[in-house]
Amino acid sequence: MEEEFITKRPVSAGAESWIEKPIPVLDNGFVRLVDYMGDDHAIAQAARTSYGRGTRSVSNDESLIRALMRDWHTSCFEMCEIKVAMKLPVFVARQIIRHRTANVNEYSARYSVLDREFYIPAPEHLASQSKDNKQGRSGLLGAEESADVLRILKDDSARCYDNYERMLSTDGQDGLSRELARMNLPVNVYTQWYWKTDLHNLFNFLRLRMDPHAQYEVRVYADALARIVEDWCPIAWGAFREYRLDAINLSATEIRTLMAALSDDRDSVDAAFPSQRERNAFWSKVHRIQNGPL
Amino acid sequence: MEEEFITKRPVSAGAESWIEKPIPVLDNGFVRLVDYMGDDHAIAQAARTSYGRGTRSVSNDESLIRALMRDWHTSCFEMCEIKVAMKLPVFVARQIIRHRTANVNEYSARYSVLDREFYIPAPEHLASQSKDNKQGRSGLLGAEESADVLRILKDDSARCYDNYERMLSTDGQDGLSRELARMNLPVNVYTQWYWKTDLHNLFNFLRLRMDPHAQYEVRVYADALARIVEDWCPIAWGAFREYRLDAINLSATEIRTLMAALSDDRDSVDAAFPSQRERNAFWSKVHRIQNGPL
Amino acid sequence: MEEEFITKRPVSAGAESWIEKPIPVLDNGFVRLVDYMGDDHAIAQAARTSYGRGTRSVSNDESLIRALMRDWHTSCFEMCEIKVAMKLPVFVARQIIRHRTANVNEYSARYSVLDREFYIPAPEHLASQSKDNKQGRSGLLGAEESADVLRILKDDSARCYDNYERMLSTDGQDGLSRELARMNLPVNVYTQWYWKTDLHNLFNFLRLRMDPHAQYEVRVYADALARIVEDWCPIAWGAFREYRLDAINLSATEIRTLMAALSDDRDSVDAAFPSQRERNAFWSKVHRIQNGPL
Amino acid sequence: MEEEFITKRPVSAGAESWIEKPIPVLDNGFVRLVDYMGDDHAIAQAARTSYGRGTRSVSNDESLIRALMRDWHTSCFEMCEIKVAMKLPVFVARQIIRHRTANVNEYSARYSVLDREFYIPAPEHLASQSKDNKQGRSGLLGAEESADVLRILKDDSARCYDNYERMLSTDGQDGLSRELARMNLPVNVYTQWYWKTDLHNLFNFLRLRMDPHAQYEVRVYADALARIVEDWCPIAWGAFREYRLDAINLSATEIRTLMAALSDDRDSVDAAFPSQRERNAFWSKVHRIQNGPL
Repeated sequence: MEEEFITKRPVSAGAESWIEKPIPVLDNGFVRLVDYMGDDHAIAQAARTSYGRGTRSVSNDESLIRALMRDWHTSCFEMCEIKVAMKLPVFVARQIIRHRTANVNEYSARYSVLDREFYIPAPEHLASQSKDNKQGRSGLLGAEESADVLRILKDDSARCYDNYERMLSTDGQDGLSRELARMNLPVNVYTQWYWKTDLHNLFNFLRLRMDPHAQYEVRVYADALARIVEDWCPIAWGAFREYRLDAINLSATEIRTLMAALSDDRDSVDAAFPSQRERNAFWSKVHRIQNGPL
Repeated sequence: MEEEFITKRPVSAGAESWIEKPIPVLDNGFVRLVDYMGDDHAIAQAARTSYGRGTRSVSNDESLIRALMRDWHTSCFEMCEIKVAMKLPVFVARQIIRHRTANVNEYSARYSVLDREFYIPAPEHLASQSKDNKQGRSGLLGAEESADVLRILKDDSARCYDNYERMLSTDGQDGLSRELARMNLPVNVYTQWYWKTDLHNLFNFLRLRMDPHAQYEVRVYADALARIVEDWCPIAWGAFREYRLDAINLSATEIRTLMAALSDDRDSVDAAFPSQRERNAFWSKVHRIQNGPL
Repeated sequence: MEEEFITKRPVSAGAESWIEKPIPVLDNGFVRLVDYMGDDHAIAQAARTSYGRGTRSVSNDESLIRALMRDWHTSCFEMCEIKVAMKLPVFVARQIIRHRTANVNEYSARYSVLDREFYIPAPEHLASQSKDNKQGRSGLLGAEESADVLRILKDDSARCYDNYERMLSTDGQDGLSRELARMNLPVNVYTQWYWKTDLHNLFNFLRLRMDPHAQYEVRVYADALARIVEDWCPIAWGAFREYRLDAINLSATEIRTLMAALSDDRDSVDAAFPSQRERNAFWSKVHRIQNGPL
Repeated sequence: MEEEFITKRPVSAGAESWIEKPIPVLDNGFVRLVDYMGDDHAIAQAARTSYGRGTRSVSNDESLIRALMRDWHTSCFEMCEIKVAMKLPVFVARQIIRHRTANVNEYSARYSVLDREFYIPAPEHLASQSKDNKQGRSGLLGAEESADVLRILKDDSARCYDNYERMLSTDGQDGLSRELARMNLPVNVYTQWYWKTDLHNLFNFLRLRMDPHAQYEVRVYADALARIVEDWCPIAWGAFREYRLDAINLSATEIRTLMAALSDDRDSVDAAFPSQRERNAFWSKVHRIQNGPL
């Protein structure tokens, strides 16, 4: 894997450093950079094609790329492409596949037998159901309940896999077809795939999946991808942080209510946001404005 | 659901007859037409916009639609849209979601608890692994092995769901969050979604998923969709059968070898197709040409 | 066109009122609603499928749809679809076609002869090149220069069309093929198409093309589409205004600098934004926060 | 441009030989390879990920890639990506942009002034309108008519560009904005863009645009791209020729009628194909089967 080649294509030193170096994720998963196309300069180069002589005045790649991100000139970021190999639990794969612009080749359990590998959460991630966020987690389970959960997950995974192998077996029987036997496996079983996407769509993915409201088990895959992007296209990554990831979107009502909130006029805020959830979301934005990033 | 409304939009009598009338699929699933846009005439109307005065000579919708299908003028078929509700096992959903042009809203097990419903194949679908087709099924399992498989699938589904409920329970414990507890469920659990796509992409889907090589459990969903399409856009459906579903693609080598095959010159065929799989595929095409549709 | 039909599909009274009623745009163009699928309730219904029992607590469609828009749950808005006929200059069509998720059937000048219809701007839209915005307009041209421009545009359009007809003519000559002759037509010639897209992608389109920085000639098409959307899905439209169109995106630096700006600490602002363009953009956001919408 | 770099990424020697070496197309256009991702081996590698242990039996890349193409396993071909710079007339760009899966950055005439470059066909491409093919060309124009056409195209291009410059001029007048002035340019003016797509979608493009029914002026761009693909991924290119480009699709009726046609039973053929166009298309397939490739 350590082979090196000569190329006339643009090369990103940061990306090269990640090729074939897997980033471990969860207990058995990984993200591994397989290939990439383009770099920061390729983004600026595409923009210069669009703007022609009109870009002469823009002095350098960085200010150009930041302007592209700021003004939603998304097509330039599509000029960079990334391909990774990933190993991930099926229920995580089911979330990631919803990002439909990616190209995917997944291990097929119709063709081949899956490995005996299951995601079993670390005890520090076994959280109870959040009361106020229907799709979220709350505090950790107690030690006893936690142990109970882990025992269940391990036992059921093991038993389901044992039975998967037993149904497949051709030892003294016909052996059930693979495409049927696999239906006995729980969604914490690991699968693998090649996943390829462009930088614009990857940024969309990261904005949604690095969000604190995303499920922890998908967030760690987004975080691993983010480490690669940061080294691959550091300028674009910086612009993404500035204008997307660390930005705030103020709704029309929030704009109208901000001056009242800054002078701590709680009655006006309460009147503007009858829903407590919207009110809380607003106050956390006000807090960030008054005190800087969380 | 039996309400009726007045509209100025094009109406397909065949489609109307399916609205809110679920087609049962597998043991617990269904496909149910929720909404549609356009009909055969809308396809022809879009084509007439493209061709302008140039279509005056084409006498009627049917010959126009058949010409569109024949000549791969796919954009006209994109002018019709269909929305269905589906209930389907997770491993089938995982195959269907690969058709990325569809719009999907799936039941979220982060928000809500899944029902205790699992796909358990009928004994007449419990087939052994095909020897020569790595992704296929072969003959049925023997009675004893079949009973064994069904017992395993039922027991493991039941136990996994019992434990799912037990982990979720807040009776005397905190209760594991839904987004984590669901990972204990096997992929034969049923999920539900709204699925919306245009007719061109639906035809692509049907061509691939009505194919005998598609897995039986996804084919039955394709078949149910095909029943709706046949009534919704009967002319387009006929053209699709003629030029796609019941058509044959002859490769360059098959074209060159066909005359030899028709005069039963097996040596020339063997020489042209060293691979037995390609040779068999070729002979089955020759058979269709000599004897008509299978 | 005034025919009415019976349907079991969801019906939007607001959309029905627009069917086959063209909205005039520019001098010879129009936007005309041809068909639609879904309405506000269909968006909420798709969300309830996703959230299952988890949505019971959300009391009504409006608060649910606003929450979807706020939290970027974009897939529910994809469940609504719209189809319009448009007549538009080629250079406007070239901008709109960049929105690649739409389905399009355009009049083909290979098949048919284009009409003698060209966009000639009204004098009140003949603006000079902006000095500080490389892609923008500035003040109106003087009367004489304006008359000069109009004369040029009319003369060149007329002459190019005359020569188009002359090359096509089979009167005493063979007649050049249509696919070649059309290359003599300037990009202010009108074309026509059917254009179909879902509501999520339409909102993306409107956010970019209703923007004051969009070219006037495409903005008027976006405005016409917006009038239809407002009547078709009034709740979704309200949420779109609140969370997208009338919202402000504050970058990380803008968040950090906002308190200084509100206390009119211009030195801190100048230090944070070395680029005058970014500084101006920031102050206009501050102005909106202090004084409400423009 | 002749710089060389070290990379750990897969390298295609054939593709490297094309980097930054423009292929001239038409009178002023070109196709120039800017970057690529993957090669034949990357396609096979992605397939092996999908099939897992199931691919062990497939001995080499070539038979695997041919099987993928034959069985429409299209996702593996999406794992290769190509980026080219193109210079092309606007009316050609309008055809190519319809392939919506490509990423594009086009020169913007809002930002910058277009060059004085127009496509003027060579006399040997000035064909008359086909009588039987509404979108096609027929024989060449006579010498006099041909000279007349060329004079018109050159004169109108020159005059339109002169007036474009005159309207833009700030010499003694305000100068019309670029976004307005450009509307005076005919669609044979040259534009430029970066165009990036994956190999699967590129094959779709080539199948449609290398077709003899495609307009000559777009076919030459497809041909230039094909030269690059042939060197970049020679095995995939060979499979594409075998199973797509040089293949024949026989419709259901054609299958039923082929035996009659091969024994020259013209009455049966006439009965099966009342439309003369379909009949001719069928006989040309029969001819290819009897006599080999055209």
